[in-house]
Amino acid sequence: MAMKLASVLLLMQLSGHFSSGTCGKVLVWPTEYSHWMNMKTILDELVQRGHEVTVLTHSASILIDRKQATSIKFEVFPTSLTKSDFEDVIIQLIDKWIYDLPKDTFWSYFSQVQEIMWRFSEIMMKFCKGAVLNKKLMTRLQESKFDVVLADAIAPCGELLAEILKTPLVYSLCLSPGNQYEKHGGGLLFPPSYVPVLMSELSDQMTFMERVKNMIYVLYFDFWFQTLNMKEWDQFYSEVLGKTTTLYETMKKADMWLIRNYWDFDFPRPFLPNFDFVGGLHCKPANPLPKEMEDFVQSSGENGVVVFSLGSMLSNMTEERANVIASALAQIPQKVLWRYDGKKPDILGPNTRLYKWLPQNDLLGHPKTKAFITHGGANGVYEAIYHGVPMVGIPLFADQPDNVAHMKAKGAAVRVDFNTMSSTDLLSALRTVINDPMYKENAMKLSRIHHDQPVKPLDRAVFWIEFVMRHKGAKHLRVAAHDLPWFQYHSLDVLGFLLACVATAIFVIMKCSMCFWWMIATAGKKAKRE
Amino acid sequence: MAMKLASVLLLMQLSGHFSSGTCGKVLVWPTEYSHWMNMKTILDELVQRGHEVTVLTHSASILIDRKQATSIKFEVFPTSLTKSDFEDVIIQLIDKWIYDLPKDTFWSYFSQVQEIMWRFSEIMMKFCKGAVLNKKLMTRLQESKFDVVLADAIAPCGELLAEILKTPLVYSLCLSPGNQYEKHGGGLLFPPSYVPVLMSELSDQMTFMERVKNMIYVLYFDFWFQTLNMKEWDQFYSEVLGKTTTLYETMKKADMWLIRNYWDFDFPRPFLPNFDFVGGLHCKPANPLPKEMEDFVQSSGENGVVVFSLGSMLSNMTEERANVIASALAQIPQKVLWRYDGKKPDILGPNTRLYKWLPQNDLLGHPKTKAFITHGGANGVYEAIYHGVPMVGIPLFADQPDNVAHMKAKGAAVRVDFNTMSSTDLLSALRTVINDPMYKENAMKLSRIHHDQPVKPLDRAVFWIEFVMRHKGAKHLRVAAHDLPWFQYHSLDVLGFLLACVATAIFVIMKCSMCFWWMIATAGKKAKRE
Repeated sequence: MAMKLASVLLLMQLSGHFSSGTCGKVLVWPTEYSHWMNMKTILDELVQRGHEVTVLTHSASILIDRKQATSIKFEVFPTSLTKSDFEDVIIQLIDKWIYDLPKDTFWSYFSQVQEIMWRFSEIMMKFCKGAVLNKKLMTRLQESKFDVVLADAIAPCGELLAEILKTPLVYSLCLSPGNQYEKHGGGLLFPPSYVPVLMSELSDQMTFMERVKNMIYVLYFDFWFQTLNMKEWDQFYSEVLGKTTTLYETMKKADMWLIRNYWDFDFPRPFLPNFDFVGGLHCKPANPLPKEMEDFVQSSGENGVVVFSLGSMLSNMTEERANVIASALAQIPQKVLWRYDGKKPDILGPNTRLYKWLPQNDLLGHPKTKAFITHGGANGVYEAIYHGVPMVGIPLFADQPDNVAHMKAKGAAVRVDFNTMSSTDLLSALRTVINDPMYKENAMKLSRIHHDQPVKPLDRAVFWIEFVMRHKGAKHLRVAAHDLPWFQYHSLDVLGFLLACVATAIFVIMKCSMCFWWMIATAGKKAKRE
Repeated sequence: MAMKLASVLLLMQLSGHFSSGTCGKVLVWPTEYSHWMNMKTILDELVQRGHEVTVLTHSASILIDRKQATSIKFEVFPTSLTKSDFEDVIIQLIDKWIYDLPKDTFWSYFSQVQEIMWRFSEIMMKFCKGAVLNKKLMTRLQESKFDVVLADAIAPCGELLAEILKTPLVYSLCLSPGNQYEKHGGGLLFPPSYVPVLMSELSDQMTFMERVKNMIYVLYFDFWFQTLNMKEWDQFYSEVLGKTTTLYETMKKADMWLIRNYWDFDFPRPFLPNFDFVGGLHCKPANPLPKEMEDFVQSSGENGVVVFSLGSMLSNMTEERANVIASALAQIPQKVLWRYDGKKPDILGPNTRLYKWLPQNDLLGHPKTKAFITHGGANGVYEAIYHGVPMVGIPLFADQPDNVAHMKAKGAAVRVDFNTMSSTDLLSALRTVINDPMYKENAMKLSRIHHDQPVKPLDRAVFWIEFVMRHKGAKHLRVAAHDLPWFQYHSLDVLGFLLACVATAIFVIMKCSMCFWWMIATAGKKAKRE
């Protein structure tokens, strides 16, 4: 009885908390593909809770479909790129990353990655200028009096918009190359001894040589690699805001960072009060499958099925690669549902069906699913964690190798290399994750951790956006570190001063001692003479 | 409609989360006075949720009243101290801190504080030995198969019990001197440039000289000041566990740290995933006052009342101090409720009533309350934050000066000094917090922040204790840093290795260059000779 009463009281308290959100106006600066899919989950929830959501986007936008999402408003500004130009550039850059990147040396690899990043950055700046320098648009936005800007931190501009519109800012971010944005824009600490740098593919348990590698990555990312052509961004921000500033300085003003990660996926590390980890916010229980698909899944019997998707960004898979994969799939007793849009492989097994699109979440939540072959995109990995499905990771680009490395370190995945794997490699990996119960056990453990949080990720994300609207910011969560120049932040001025004091004290003591001894010596000589 | 449905769904999700807690067995290692009062709030909630709570305490325990709390089990072990001996020692040490500490120099002050701490530490070790070396007791505890040890980190022993009983460990902690436990036992980072060390009485906005002071405090606490007689504790832990270990090493195994603070009270700073900030968990809405008290409060009319308590630890207030206070109180138009147990001051004003005990929370939550005169104990300050009441702080000892400094920095309090204040000082402070609307405004702002959290502090505390019981720990929240020796944690081995590599490379290049030049020079000479 007491328990029941406590539960009711608890529910009342919690409902009181959430219903206190005033309905506000949210301006969104989104990015494309998986980033948009994740962001849209938050926007749909905000709309459902009565907020007015306006997405600010350019006319070349690919995935941001203004027709589909009728409850969300769209403010579209023109850009000189066409949708197909934009798509071509993206595919070209991603293809380069997947197929053409030299993996022989560290320098050649990262110089090419940097080149790709800079191309992205150029396009992002074009879009940013398209918005910010469009006077009519900016006047309209200013008149709209938004309560908060919600921006994906991976594409700069959101912080500039928030600054111009004098509006609080909430970031949504998956990860940034080398963790540069969270570090320099958000003030997070990444101790190199146990926090692996993003793109290093390391875990939090490192050998000595791995720690050396991680330190080299830290130094490289901090002092050499630039995700963006920083000078141009800094100059643009300074021009627009009419004061000398930088992109990172402007990012520091964010009220809240909603990181699309959690300690089921990432390794525990230090963070700050204005960071919340809302990874897997898009995950939800499985819906029933379409009849044909359900029949196929059920036909697998005891063996179950394998779900296979390399995401929407992979095009131009060679016939050779497709056959290597098909050959491996043909040799397992499970049925396979493969999301594949290319020419049908010659040696496709009777157990494998190709689909142009898969209801991935519903399939991963199906009790017959034994394994997930994935490129390691964060959204897909989170769906696998949510449903407790072990993985075979075939990472392609960006954060995918790290995501797979994380799942591997947590014992829920085996990794194979897309360009070099043989049928035997893939087959062996598949058999391992399906037949070794440890993988399922670890995936279930991650799932249990994921489901057992005080508040669900999506509710927390929405809570903080509403909080920032209610309180016109969240200044009480913002560390004073953001107001300090780097030498003060690292206490270099204080240490310099204390060392100078110690040195002066030593100098004075030595001088006094020397004077004292000199006086004694002089007195001694005088005495001898007398 | 959509909003309503969303709310219902949300409530269902949240209720699902909380009710999933299996009922378990909790062993508690508590401390006395305000620490116990706070801990008891958690224990009552655990009992109400169906858990079996056993408090392990010694026969000299003061506040831990075994008769009052009938739903909580008590395991009492004998100790050579009597209750009155123990109480005398505590009062004697606190009195020394309040009245006799030399405040003229840093060294003399802290050497005395250290002496007081060591005396406490000796007593705590006596109690710890009384429990751990009591074989019958330990066998009984082992047989009870507890699911978690909940310990106040301020008094060591909880971590040793958890280690012996092979049980997960959750800490509750307000603050430790110089933040030493959270730093060395919990792995928290305290960047000296913007995180004021506890006992420095600084804020997060420091001038250059304040940052110098903070750095000196950091160095002093890290390398000189010892809260505990560490060697003895380390030796005792090593003996009991049969391996060379230390107190801090044992503390590092804690699954969760529930810190009785939040960003309404403290300044934002870095923390780790296994830390949650549950400050104010004991706060609750005000109950009606007893009739006589309510009548007195209502008789204040528009002017309202002032609530005054210096806590339960202050004894032996001199008549002179009592008269200074009474004289100031007599001069304000408000009615005053003063918790005071000494001889009635000669010049007590007609507006002031003395009480041996006050329903502090109910009074602070009364709409007539205009200000709170407090010694700055964390529990009382949190009650003032909860109800949005501005404060006059008269700190006495321990963390109280820092608590008051925090409230002062946040614009919700004025500080006066207990030993040196005149009636005019107290009167001026009181008039300021009552008549300057900024203080009420800031107190209300803190109150709004406090009430607007995704989950209430007490519910979060209980959630994590239940989580640790459900999952037999919370290893996924524990940073890998805890497994690294200090030189690896600070990457000194890696930096040394990289410097050695660079030095070797420079040496080899220089040697080769010298060889090369020598060969050229030799060739030149030969050519000349020929």
